Order: sequence, then C-alpha cells, then structure tokens
Amino acid sequence: MRVDIWSDIACPWCYVGKARFDKAVSQFANGDQVEVRHRSFELDPGRAPNDIAPVVPMIAEKYGISVAQAQANEYKLGDLASAEGLEYQTEGRDHGSTFDLHRILHFAAEKGLEAEVWEAFYRANFAEEASLYDCGRIVEVAVAAGLDKDEVTAVLEDPAAYREAVKADEAEAAALGANGVPFFVIDGKYGVSGAQPTEVFGEILDKAWGERKPAIITVAGTDDAEACGPDGCAI
Amino acid sequence: MRVDIWSDIACPWCYVGKARFDKAVSQFANGDQVEVRHRSFELDPGRAPNDIAPVVPMIAEKYGISVAQAQANEYKLGDLASAEGLEYQTEGRDHGSTFDLHRILHFAAEKGLEAEVWEAFYRANFAEEASLYDCGRIVEVAVAAGLDKDEVTAVLEDPAAYREAVKADEAEAAALGANGVPFFVIDGKYGVSGAQPTEVFGEILDKAWGERKPAIITVAGTDDAEACGPDGCAI
Repeated sequence: MRVDIWSDIACPWCYVGKARFDKAVSQFANGDQVEVRHRSFELDPGRAPNDIAPVVPMIAEKYGISVAQAQANEYKLGDLASAEGLEYQTEGRDHGSTFDLHRILHFAAEKGLEAEVWEAFYRANFAEEASLYDCGRIVEVAVAAGLDKDEVTAVLEDPAAYREAVKADEAEAAALGANGVPFFVIDGKYGVSGAQPTEVFGEILDKAWGERKPAIITVAGTDDAEACGPDGCAI
Repeated sequence: MRVDIWSDIACPWCYVGKARFDKAVSQFANGDQVEVRHRSFELDPGRAPNDIAPVVPMIAEKYGISVAQAQANEYKLGDLASAEGLEYQTEGRDHGSTFDLHRILHFAAEKGLEAEVWEAFYRANFAEEASLYDCGRIVEVAVAAGLDKDEVTAVLEDPAAYREAVKADEAEAAALGANGVPFFVIDGKYGVSGAQPTEVFGEILDKAWGERKPAIITVAGTDDAEACGPDGCAI
C-alpha cells in the first residue's frame, strides 16, 4: 500500500507530522507493506536561491508579529518536536529556497535513497547548527546519506535537472486541493492534511488497508489475440 | 489515465500489438490524457548476453518445426506488421538477451525518453538490417533516440544498473498472472493479453475512462492538526 506525502523540508509541521506518521506505520500490523513516497511542495516557491535569512526575524516581518512572538513560536515547535523524540534548534535556524533540496530528493528516489536523504535533510534543517541553505552543505548532507558526490553536484549545477519532477508534484498537489503541508494521500484514495496525531494516521491506514483494491480484472478481448510466451509466439 | 504495457523488444506480437494500441489511443477522445508506461518482461530471461543467434533456425530448433515453417512464420508476421504500417525484416533477424535493452529502457524513463527509446528499439530489432544484439549498436540506437552516450555506456557496463527495476516489473507481471506478452493493464484495473485488435483496445479505454476513480476522499482527522501553508505555519 502506497502513501504519498507532500511536504517541504522548511516546514516544521512536516518534520513533526512525518515522525507521527512513521510511528503509526511502525505500530500498524501491515507496516512492512506500506511504501512511503516523498512528494515535493515548496512553501515559498518563488524564493531566490541566494535569499537566505534567519527564520525568526523573517517570520516576524512576514506575518507582522514581534520578534519575541516569532521566537516563542520556535520554542513551542521545539517542545512539540521534542515530544516526538526529534531534536530541534529553536534558535538561529535559517530559511531559504528548498527547490534544490526537492530536486535532490527526486534524484535520491531514483537511487533508492529517498528515505535516507529525506530524513537527513530534515535533520540538517531542524536539528543541526550548520545552515542547510548552501550548496556545499547540501552536498555534504546528501553524500553522508549515501549519494555520490559528483552526481549530486551535477544535479545542483543543472537547474533543469528534476525541475519538471518537482513541478509535476506541485501541480498534482494543487489538483488534489492541497494548499498546505504536510499532506498525506493513503493508497491513492484518502487525503489528510496536517500533522495529525499518530492515532489518526493509524485509523486511516487501517481503513485504507481494509478497502485496498483487488487485483486487476482480466478482460477477455478477442480470444485468439496473438501473444508470445516462454514457449514461443502463437502464429 | 495510466496504461502499463509489459512487453519484450524481441516479441513480434508486442511490436504489432503496441502499434494497434497506439492507434486506439490516437482515436480515443481522451487520448491526450493516456500516459503509457513500458514495463519489462523478458521472454528468454536466462539467456546469456553473448548468446546471439539468427531467429529462424533458433525458432525451428527450439519448437521442433522445420526451418521452412519457421521462415514462413516470419513472412506471416511481416504481413501482419505491414498491415499496421510497420516495417519488418522477415529474413536474417537476430535473437538474443533483451536484459540490457530493458535496463536502458528504465534509464530512458528517468530521462523522459521512454517512448522514444522504446520505439527506436522496436524499429532497430524488427525493421532494420543491423542486429540490435551488440553493445555498440544498442548505444548507437539509444543515442539516436536522445540519450547521452556516456550515460548509456555506463549503464551497459554496470550489470547491476536498473537490474532491480527490470526484475520488479517481471515480479509484478507474475503477480498479476501474466505469463506472456504483450500484457496491458489499463488504469491499474483492467488487464488484457495479446495483440488485440485496435477496436478491442478502444473499448477497454472507453470503459476504464468511464469508471476512472474519483479524486481522493478527504479525511477530516483532527480538525486543528497543524500545517504550514503559503501564509505561514499554524502555531
């Protein structure tokens, strides 16, 4: 059973929500048959790659709240992350464009390392002191997660690489009516928004599993339609 | 709407059946919304890469028929291909392992060139005089279809590259009960075997389109589950 998760590496609720979801999967009887796929969603899609700024004053200015309030929000997020067993740097985090991170995540998926790189990017963005918004740091984190340095560098240097894959994910999210993240689609059927409690994710997994679709229906077509098999081609 | 087609490049009925299917899509009112995916199926999966032989005597020996009968079968296949507007070399074609071709097709899919390389491989195998069962020729055909020469060579030189992707496709075909090709699965729902007439493919496309699943069902979950949107993160 497949679960698609639209999220952004810069999204604290995605970081927390993913941990709650992962816990639900680990508690789910058929958890080993749940295939999770990362889907791209940039919260700040127009942001220039070199527009990097500390989170707290950026949030304060963007939403017209005081720096103290923005900082208090970070402390609250830190507490909620901590409740899920996640580390969280509540002071001094950076914000920037996540477009390159999404491109690398699509590349990682092709290499079978999506889960590893996804977790490494979350950790680097939320739990580590060094800013992730820097080509050198992105390469460092991606390579530590198992990707090849030259290949990652080549993807970063070619802005067209995986661009369409990121944009296609975002178009699909829009078509599904998702205007925020995290956004989960379970078995292509049930959509749920937000960092739901683990129990809610567990209930949806149970429900979708119970209703998962049967194998395909075989259509007879023309009985003598020609085919080739291990014993040769019907003539 | 997605259509998965399991096939082998060495399979004449796959070559003919794909042309009949493509014609059905071109005549289908929603044909521009049909996404076709190549899925791997080797008819001769244990064949050594260097075991290359002319088709006609190989077929005669394998199935205990005369060389004349095997050659007559090729002429008949040539006529049926011709009826679909396809060229077909009825004399002197080679047979060999298609494992490398399938690996390159998976690579091509990642590069957005699956359709182009698929068609080029069919054409090279059935319509052109030069044998496709040779690394140099595979590279030549793949590059003419738009792939990068160094990248194709690297895939061919690494037998592990895309091996699992090929094997996963074959395992899925087996799970779906397909023991011959071509095998079509329309919208993950209807399976049909063989080079069906164009009209049969058209009927199945119509049926599947009429029944295509609705958009996802939104699950409310906990109403105040936290999410981040373009206007910030709910705290």
